[in-house]
Amino acid sequence: MSPHRLQTRELLVRLDRTRGARVGRQLEEQLREAIRSGSLAPGSALPSTRMLAEDLGVSRGVVVRAYGQLAAEGYIRLRQGANPSVRRLPLPEPGLSAPAQRPARRRMRYDLRPHLPEVAAFPRQGWVRATRNALARAANADLSYLDAQGLYALRAEIAAYLGRARGVAADPERIVITTGSTHSLSVIGSVLARQGSTRMAFENPSHFLLQSVALRSGQTPIAVPVDEQGLRVEQLGDSQSVFVSPAHQFPTGVALSPDRRGELVRWARRTGGLIVEDDYDAEFRYDRAPIGALQGLSPDHVAYVGSTGKTLAPAIRVGWVVLPPAIVDAAVVEIRETLVHVSGIDQLAFTDFLARGEFDRHLRRMRALYRSRRDALVDALATHLPDLQVSGAAAGLHVVLELPSFEIEAAVQKLARSRGVFVDAISQHTLPGYDGPAGLLIGYGAVAEPALPLAVEQIAGAVREASDSCPNLLQVA
Amino acid sequence: MSPHRLQTRELLVRLDRTRGARVGRQLEEQLREAIRSGSLAPGSALPSTRMLAEDLGVSRGVVVRAYGQLAAEGYIRLRQGANPSVRRLPLPEPGLSAPAQRPARRRMRYDLRPHLPEVAAFPRQGWVRATRNALARAANADLSYLDAQGLYALRAEIAAYLGRARGVAADPERIVITTGSTHSLSVIGSVLARQGSTRMAFENPSHFLLQSVALRSGQTPIAVPVDEQGLRVEQLGDSQSVFVSPAHQFPTGVALSPDRRGELVRWARRTGGLIVEDDYDAEFRYDRAPIGALQGLSPDHVAYVGSTGKTLAPAIRVGWVVLPPAIVDAAVVEIRETLVHVSGIDQLAFTDFLARGEFDRHLRRMRALYRSRRDALVDALATHLPDLQVSGAAAGLHVVLELPSFEIEAAVQKLARSRGVFVDAISQHTLPGYDGPAGLLIGYGAVAEPALPLAVEQIAGAVREASDSCPNLLQVA
Repeated sequence: MSPHRLQTRELLVRLDRTRGARVGRQLEEQLREAIRSGSLAPGSALPSTRMLAEDLGVSRGVVVRAYGQLAAEGYIRLRQGANPSVRRLPLPEPGLSAPAQRPARRRMRYDLRPHLPEVAAFPRQGWVRATRNALARAANADLSYLDAQGLYALRAEIAAYLGRARGVAADPERIVITTGSTHSLSVIGSVLARQGSTRMAFENPSHFLLQSVALRSGQTPIAVPVDEQGLRVEQLGDSQSVFVSPAHQFPTGVALSPDRRGELVRWARRTGGLIVEDDYDAEFRYDRAPIGALQGLSPDHVAYVGSTGKTLAPAIRVGWVVLPPAIVDAAVVEIRETLVHVSGIDQLAFTDFLARGEFDRHLRRMRALYRSRRDALVDALATHLPDLQVSGAAAGLHVVLELPSFEIEAAVQKLARSRGVFVDAISQHTLPGYDGPAGLLIGYGAVAEPALPLAVEQIAGAVREASDSCPNLLQVA
Repeated sequence: MSPHRLQTRELLVRLDRTRGARVGRQLEEQLREAIRSGSLAPGSALPSTRMLAEDLGVSRGVVVRAYGQLAAEGYIRLRQGANPSVRRLPLPEPGLSAPAQRPARRRMRYDLRPHLPEVAAFPRQGWVRATRNALARAANADLSYLDAQGLYALRAEIAAYLGRARGVAADPERIVITTGSTHSLSVIGSVLARQGSTRMAFENPSHFLLQSVALRSGQTPIAVPVDEQGLRVEQLGDSQSVFVSPAHQFPTGVALSPDRRGELVRWARRTGGLIVEDDYDAEFRYDRAPIGALQGLSPDHVAYVGSTGKTLAPAIRVGWVVLPPAIVDAAVVEIRETLVHVSGIDQLAFTDFLARGEFDRHLRRMRALYRSRRDALVDALATHLPDLQVSGAAAGLHVVLELPSFEIEAAVQKLARSRGVFVDAISQHTLPGYDGPAGLLIGYGAVAEPALPLAVEQIAGAVREASDSCPNLLQVA
């Protein structure tokens, strides 16, 4: 059976001449779509270039080019002395009809999750200014392939900032730029794993994402308890490294005590273990000066990790890690081989933002803003839930509302959610063996001050409701 | 023996009152530095707050705060009824003296490496405008934690762009935003590996970085030869996926022929294998319309990979992958769990840049610029090295100057470098078993047109020199 020879009208081509001279493009697109959708059957012979050109009223060159293009792309076959034919393609794809709607996400009335900073206060104009300054001055080379360690000028500004603000002993040569704190952890975890060091301790509780990142980088997470002085250093056991948040432990909010700081540094010196210091919200300490970084005590045993996620906005993906000199090169190799780089534009803009003192000014504004929110939240909790203990309020972007059991914690969290309040709970961040208190993690970073008492009223309602439904469990409130 | 009790003058504190009221900060910094450097011995007792305040002429509160701060950081110990004492710290760190100078990199007079685009033509003002527009209009939520799949509006713009420019069958739901093509490869490699698919074929030759990225993501690279029609599909063997650059193979510059396109798609349909299509420089095709993406032939069997690295600038870290629907979710999980995100600001700015047609205009300008450079380079090579074959010139940012052997290739590359010309060679990108031609990869992306004949003169000189020193090897020229 000879193949079906198509007539021009069967091609269903509709050329729209009002769209200008690009009829060839239209022809090509419509034929491609018809072949892909199966409406032109495989094996069918297309009209000759001469006939199609005549039928459509276009020059023959237009058809020759369109056929040539479709042939090069594999949709049709051109043969000497015969009409072009439609190639056999895979069946039409069902998933490709109308694009699916963006899934709607249920919005909470009050989002008090602990990790949210106030993105409404992001310095949009300041950032545009920094981008303009930076692009006006950048060398062409700054726009080309990036230094895997990060832009030198940025590392120099970060070293100066960390020295003055956090007491970090930093120089640009030991800083590596990353896309954020978890990327830093992933790089450190991989470097250690390659050196045979695979047992990384984590505070119990600590943020649930950390362990999965550590696992993927080749580390086996080891849970070490936290008490009111912070990490129980004496329980590090045979850990080869330890991830800590000394300034404001997540989620408990405790600060590592001076004694424990000394103990931890001595552990690192004695065992050769690496301390990974996550300084994730240390810039926000309200009742006294920030506690300087642990890294300053022992720069050769600490990898200091920070980012702009909390201080500027999560959407700015600039992080850094200040490393012991011995592992800087390995970390740079790790980044070079994975080619995960921070946007060069963001690096340039943030360099300018730091150099002109905008970052320091922004942090002062944010500290004042968060301090009033913190005060409003703590006041409201004291008013509406006077019998429950609030802790971890000295710094950061959240407090802990302690609850007598995990059953109550789960009940209160669920009831709060049904009342439009979104909070985290300690049990979301515990590792096996945890035996500390239960509680809600109530963030105040992203909630306007007047809304905080209203949200707390709903939380208090949830606590009462939980208490009514299980009166034996909840002795308080 | 009782500990040494320090006098105020032994502390070597120098307060500079012209720096304003922040004497407390100065005191704290100088004491911290003195302890860290070892000039205040561990165990030494510091002056009492009252005495130090008197000696320095500051209020007692200033000293109390400074001591309190240093105690919290673990530098000193405060004791009831006794003077504060210096804690025992690790020894001072040798690596932390003066910051090392930035290492100087030797600059080549002519950098003709094949992967370099013209960053001098980066639309700096256009990008600032896009950033300003985007930040003026962005929702606050756009600045918060990012959708691991990428900004929806950006995916919608990229889908439209890829449809009109590359014949890609894309919708926003099957696009995932990455930090670039190697990040895309890494995500795909991990997803496949988790599904038990670990044998990924690569064109031989292909870019040397690809295999190391694939290895890290759990893939075992398999080398498959390339001829003048592109990948030898029939040699895919038991590969479970294949990474190809059909529009302009790197480094040979051949385009995958229509027959091979069909063969490859049939392979994927028959085996269920995944084709990873790297469309890295397909926007730059000079003598005819670009060849549409292979993905359009079979969207459910192709992962289409692209980025702004060549089209805008390597420093902009925005890449994308258009995936078969079946593996979109797994890729998003992969990104969510590693938390490697593209800058939200770059995503917003590029969305605006695409939506206003700036990207299309920029590409037209760049295509014209690169075409003249390509012409100038090919002309100069024809003039100065008429006996050597030039291939792969129809598209992309480099041509191949074929050479009769790898020995000559190495000699010419080295001699060219000593004459100030930086070029790559095919042998840098071969996998075991390669038996194709040797040659230089001469890029023209980043070299001004008038400089190209001068650079070619130096290359021709290098070829003659190599020919003089090993006349038996080099029959040509």
